[in-house]
Amino acid sequence: MPLDQGIAQRLKRNEAGLVSAVVQDATTLRVLMVAWMNDDALDETLRTRRGVYFSRSRNEIWRKGETSGHVQHVVSAELDCDGDAVLLMVDQTGGACHTGKISCFDEGGALELGVGAPS
Amino acid sequence: MPLDQGIAQRLKRNEAGLVSAVVQDATTLRVLMVAWMNDDALDETLRTRRGVYFSRSRNEIWRKGETSGHVQHVVSAELDCDGDAVLLMVDQTGGACHTGKISCFDEGGALELGVGAPS
Repeated sequence: MPLDQGIAQRLKRNEAGLVSAVVQDATTLRVLMVAWMNDDALDETLRTRRGVYFSRSRNEIWRKGETSGHVQHVVSAELDCDGDAVLLMVDQTGGACHTGKISCFDEGGALELGVGAPS
Repeated sequence: MPLDQGIAQRLKRNEAGLVSAVVQDATTLRVLMVAWMNDDALDETLRTRRGVYFSRSRNEIWRKGETSGHVQHVVSAELDCDGDAVLLMVDQTGGACHTGKISCFDEGGALELGVGAPS
């Protein structure tokens, strides 16, 4: 199905036709991952309440958990002020990161602050 | 100052030399905004513990709050698994959104779920 016209008109897509998607755990509020959506991915996410994205590396729709089983049930979706980012609250089954970690930011890890300057 | 070499080597920048920055309130855990960083913005953010980004519309470094006073004190910074997104926890002074709202997602607002398909 095509994306709802009212929503489609509010989107500010990048040159590749994509908006950012920030995915937050609905219980812990931990940010789990950052991904991309085209209109079809956003439409499918909103209709089915499953986290569906656009894979830039594979250049195709990516239904999160389709192979891993680590699916996301979407509890809420919000668009930001300028229409180029979507925030999803999800109930996440298993780890959100392809490495197995709960969050992709658990895998990447902390960056040191205040080095070379007063805090 | 140039960005720490160890960090610079972990970044996967887009074609414009940027990574995504997701900014979360350190107290409420509300996602406040999504922005972009080049190496200089990330370096300045980490050194000074102030939220510093790259404005794509103005094509320049953007020190959040420089004109509005709505500055961000950075409590933690994390890099994601593939090096293309940074997650900041901040103490936000005033609204994070240029519209005055606390979060940019408060301004954009909720998208309806489950329309046209069973949930």
